[in-house]
Amino acid sequence: MKRPGHVEAGRVERGVNVPQSYRLARRDSRGERTVVHLRNGATFGGEEIAICAGPCGVESSEQLDETARSVADAGANVLRGGAYKPRTSPYSFQGLGEEALKMLRDAGDRYGLGVVTEVLDPRDVELVTKYADMLQIGTRNMQNFPLLREVGATRMPVLLKRGLSATVQEWLLAAEYVLLGGNESVVLCERGVRSFDVATRNLLDISVVPLLEDLTHLPVIVDPSHAMGIARLVPPIAVAAIAAGAHGLLIEVHPDPPNALSDGAQSLDCAQFRELMRRLSPVAEFAGRRLPRRKPSGDGVANAGYRGSAAGEESASTAHSEVRSSSSGVKLA
Amino acid sequence: MKRPGHVEAGRVERGVNVPQSYRLARRDSRGERTVVHLRNGATFGGEEIAICAGPCGVESSEQLDETARSVADAGANVLRGGAYKPRTSPYSFQGLGEEALKMLRDAGDRYGLGVVTEVLDPRDVELVTKYADMLQIGTRNMQNFPLLREVGATRMPVLLKRGLSATVQEWLLAAEYVLLGGNESVVLCERGVRSFDVATRNLLDISVVPLLEDLTHLPVIVDPSHAMGIARLVPPIAVAAIAAGAHGLLIEVHPDPPNALSDGAQSLDCAQFRELMRRLSPVAEFAGRRLPRRKPSGDGVANAGYRGSAAGEESASTAHSEVRSSSSGVKLA
Amino acid sequence: MKRPGHVEAGRVERGVNVPQSYRLARRDSRGERTVVHLRNGATFGGEEIAICAGPCGVESSEQLDETARSVADAGANVLRGGAYKPRTSPYSFQGLGEEALKMLRDAGDRYGLGVVTEVLDPRDVELVTKYADMLQIGTRNMQNFPLLREVGATRMPVLLKRGLSATVQEWLLAAEYVLLGGNESVVLCERGVRSFDVATRNLLDISVVPLLEDLTHLPVIVDPSHAMGIARLVPPIAVAAIAAGAHGLLIEVHPDPPNALSDGAQSLDCAQFRELMRRLSPVAEFAGRRLPRRKPSGDGVANAGYRGSAAGEESASTAHSEVRSSSSGVKLA
Amino acid sequence: MKRPGHVEAGRVERGVNVPQSYRLARRDSRGERTVVHLRNGATFGGEEIAICAGPCGVESSEQLDETARSVADAGANVLRGGAYKPRTSPYSFQGLGEEALKMLRDAGDRYGLGVVTEVLDPRDVELVTKYADMLQIGTRNMQNFPLLREVGATRMPVLLKRGLSATVQEWLLAAEYVLLGGNESVVLCERGVRSFDVATRNLLDISVVPLLEDLTHLPVIVDPSHAMGIARLVPPIAVAAIAAGAHGLLIEVHPDPPNALSDGAQSLDCAQFRELMRRLSPVAEFAGRRLPRRKPSGDGVANAGYRGSAAGEESASTAHSEVRSSSSGVKLA
Repeated sequence: MKRPGHVEAGRVERGVNVPQSYRLARRDSRGERTVVHLRNGATFGGEEIAICAGPCGVESSEQLDETARSVADAGANVLRGGAYKPRTSPYSFQGLGEEALKMLRDAGDRYGLGVVTEVLDPRDVELVTKYADMLQIGTRNMQNFPLLREVGATRMPVLLKRGLSATVQEWLLAAEYVLLGGNESVVLCERGVRSFDVATRNLLDISVVPLLEDLTHLPVIVDPSHAMGIARLVPPIAVAAIAAGAHGLLIEVHPDPPNALSDGAQSLDCAQFRELMRRLSPVAEFAGRRLPRRKPSGDGVANAGYRGSAAGEESASTAHSEVRSSSSGVKLA
Repeated sequence: MKRPGHVEAGRVERGVNVPQSYRLARRDSRGERTVVHLRNGATFGGEEIAICAGPCGVESSEQLDETARSVADAGANVLRGGAYKPRTSPYSFQGLGEEALKMLRDAGDRYGLGVVTEVLDPRDVELVTKYADMLQIGTRNMQNFPLLREVGATRMPVLLKRGLSATVQEWLLAAEYVLLGGNESVVLCERGVRSFDVATRNLLDISVVPLLEDLTHLPVIVDPSHAMGIARLVPPIAVAAIAAGAHGLLIEVHPDPPNALSDGAQSLDCAQFRELMRRLSPVAEFAGRRLPRRKPSGDGVANAGYRGSAAGEESASTAHSEVRSSSSGVKLA
Repeated sequence: MKRPGHVEAGRVERGVNVPQSYRLARRDSRGERTVVHLRNGATFGGEEIAICAGPCGVESSEQLDETARSVADAGANVLRGGAYKPRTSPYSFQGLGEEALKMLRDAGDRYGLGVVTEVLDPRDVELVTKYADMLQIGTRNMQNFPLLREVGATRMPVLLKRGLSATVQEWLLAAEYVLLGGNESVVLCERGVRSFDVATRNLLDISVVPLLEDLTHLPVIVDPSHAMGIARLVPPIAVAAIAAGAHGLLIEVHPDPPNALSDGAQSLDCAQFRELMRRLSPVAEFAGRRLPRRKPSGDGVANAGYRGSAAGEESASTAHSEVRSSSSGVKLA
Repeated sequence: MKRPGHVEAGRVERGVNVPQSYRLARRDSRGERTVVHLRNGATFGGEEIAICAGPCGVESSEQLDETARSVADAGANVLRGGAYKPRTSPYSFQGLGEEALKMLRDAGDRYGLGVVTEVLDPRDVELVTKYADMLQIGTRNMQNFPLLREVGATRMPVLLKRGLSATVQEWLLAAEYVLLGGNESVVLCERGVRSFDVATRNLLDISVVPLLEDLTHLPVIVDPSHAMGIARLVPPIAVAAIAAGAHGLLIEVHPDPPNALSDGAQSLDCAQFRELMRRLSPVAEFAGRRLPRRKPSGDGVANAGYRGSAAGEESASTAHSEVRSSSSGVKLA
């Protein structure tokens, strides 16, 4: 069996002569910065920033459709939503699984949005790649190495969230696991680290935005929703992130936050999200970037529906991920 | 498909009426404290403490045999050793996989030691249960929920290490995932949390030893090796842990620490481990406990070799794990 | 003797009926937001933001004069510089004391800049108020209560830096010590907190900018220099802070950073500071604020030289600090 | 003016050639370990450990007398109690000041106990040295450099608590400030550091006990009361600290914890303290140490009452502090 999880096992390497750092992720390993493209045209790392928005968890097709339509109208270009939810308590809502994946694909196609959703289990990677455009590796799984290897074996873009108390070096080494599998489409996502203060849910480390620009060629986006845990603080921090140079945002939006099954306190409602998008436009411009271009709903990004499993993992992922900038070509062992 | 990873998915529970806490792990959910037994007679949570010792990673059968013989002679009753190593860098030694599992089983049987080893991937759980007596969930996987559910579906004892910056509540909720699967044999292992100071590798939170005694019926052991990262500090901290009431220790021992493939700096050599065992004896007594009883090598714990996969997961695990509530009561100092 | 340090001593209060929180600092204790004015016209908390710039430590009159002229030309309105330096090691440069205070006053007067400088010792407060326009309480002294009471007894504006691992609540309670002394002119300064990662010197908590807007009527500024510890990261973070709504910045500028006696690595040189000011202008506008208005050097802010001790502490401080509640209201983006 | 606070000011040292570390505090700067003696015979750093016990704050002579008698009977040899309390809120009980100092001296003399009490303000050092046998520098003041210099200029033993998030290196450099003033009698006190978990008040870093044994010749004691914040956890952690090699303990004891004006939740009552002392005896022996020898109340340690200010600071402090072990003689510049 050739699962990616075990390619390294059995190979005894002496640590001494092997540089214990991120060879592939480092800035100077490529001539140009990586730009990650989704099938619907969304880009991470280019002049156009990516706005990923949607509910924490997919709860119903109605909830998702309403949110997707609203965020698309407001200018988002990627739909986020959890089908498999990592929850601290086993008694909390754990997600709707494949049913939610179908809803995400439908809503994404309907409104021209790319779809990013979290995968928790290496055994689910194949299934999730059938529906999603980008695989999210959550905070708790930043060092789930079998999972990193599994997504590294696909050719689907990966959104790699920073671990709860991961150093920048550990984060880049986690990215290295994906890159080493041959998947060049990694986007880093800062979402706050654990701190001693409970005033906010986590402590957003905004310094990584310019810091990572020096250290790596990979794009970095910011998730102010999980960092803050309080909806009112999300817009000013989103604005600050773009001003600091972030290549995109991941924002939780729910049509009815007080009744959300998870993360209601930190979710913007649809009107708040629209207002945020209005504020972001001049800041993006100031930062030398621009918001996603509006596309009329139902235009050319309409799709042929679900990709069946017959299509195979490889074709599905190459269809979605084009790391175009690598003109010099990165040769990965 | 009935993998344990998904039993919850699809079940939408409103958080409001469900107490978001550890029902099964809490102290008052059971009349007595949990005592976890391994097949070779080692116990966690009873009057006799458990001493788990061995190398960070299994490197060769010679290395392992020498270590196992030495720690058994010194009085340890459980052999630790990594077959699958979670490593920050993809370029570091990743473990020998199933080959190492076989070596562990051989060495354990030869010297009458129980075997505890880490499992990283839910797909490896079935394989690892064929060789091990106890499944270790490492720090990085404390909130790897598919993995927790998978080991919760076995009946093999689980050693659940605290996450790098996990609160005590999050740790107990992780244990709850395992207990909820029907596996009652969970042992908690404190191994230090991440801190701002680099003087030691991690910051050992010794307070959890008495604190968990109040909060849960589950046993708690301490891993001073990963906490300190410096061999010289391991013995005094091991002694302190037992004095504080810990039910056991997890100690890294290597016959030749300077040439270890991983964690050499924090590994005791065989002589240092023997010396530590001598120091531990009066402290265990002071704490109302005792060290494992010595058994002559090759006595009645000799085993029939590997359990074939035919034996099935269930019989393998029930054979190993007997949570016999200590009817005589655990005397806690 | 009626030193402020002891006004509370001897008064036994039962904690039960006394709300243990910040009565005077809280948002709703005043009808309007506090705007702190320095004698030279600089304001904190109004439409015009404050730009405080200068060297970490005052090293010589030449160094200070060059820096002051340069930052004034670039648009700063407050000169920072340490006369008394709190240093981790007793063997590091400790500051030039009163000599440096005189240089600061001279340079401030020469270029129309307000002067902010740190006071470490309650016995130095009277002396420092003779020269400065604003008293800085450093990170290590956020909970130096005798010092807080001493500056609370003056009427000179206070710049209160957040402690190294102070919660927002502790910080506001430290401000409460100053306010309770009758000094209403407190400006909070976020400068990063201690974290587990050494990638940057501290971890800037940008969330406090919008958070404090809700919790208190006091203005908040940001010190990206100490937060980052790396000059290259200072400009993008400064920009982000203003975008998030900060009322000002505290920036270390040195004419020759590689030869600075302290904090050279995080100091901008004069050209970098000018470039930062250019970038800040549109961001301030976006945030509904504006940079300080340029004043020709040597204009009406010229002063009568040092205020002698005869002037007395009270008159000196009231002359400097006018908390004029902005009747027109501060428009917050 | 020759206050110690300013001896360094004005001396510009280039950092380059000066080793930025603890010259005087480091292990190899002295031939032997420092043993700090109090006038009543208590020692820190020798074979006999020091047990410092008493209330958080001195509330009345009755409360103090009852506590002092009780802890002396149980075997403590140093009385702790706050006269000046550093409190997060200005509305909390701030201590009784000099009145409390008198009570402490009386109670100490009556029961043969040394007296340790905190000094917050450099202006209070002279006053406190008239009454106390040991000056405590609290957590919030570990880097209050004027205060460190002021106590460094006395010859009275200093108990230097670790800062809330101080690294071991910063702590030793704080000790260096005291040693550099010529005061060789410094005892380090670990009291827990700030962490992300609120299960205990602070996170006790027990690793520093063996670590400091390598790094410095200064003795180290442990304060489990402030570390835990919960009385029930204090005894097992106190035991663990002695087992790990600590040279003493600082324990909060109150005759009526529920009605204490401060820190009631973490204070042992008198019976709990007696029980702890019984448990400590075998552990101290195991660690190669012994508890303080009992002395009949009112024996030869009776004193001539308060030392008047006429006695002068120098004679008062030299009478109290004898660093006997320095046979090789440490020459301090």
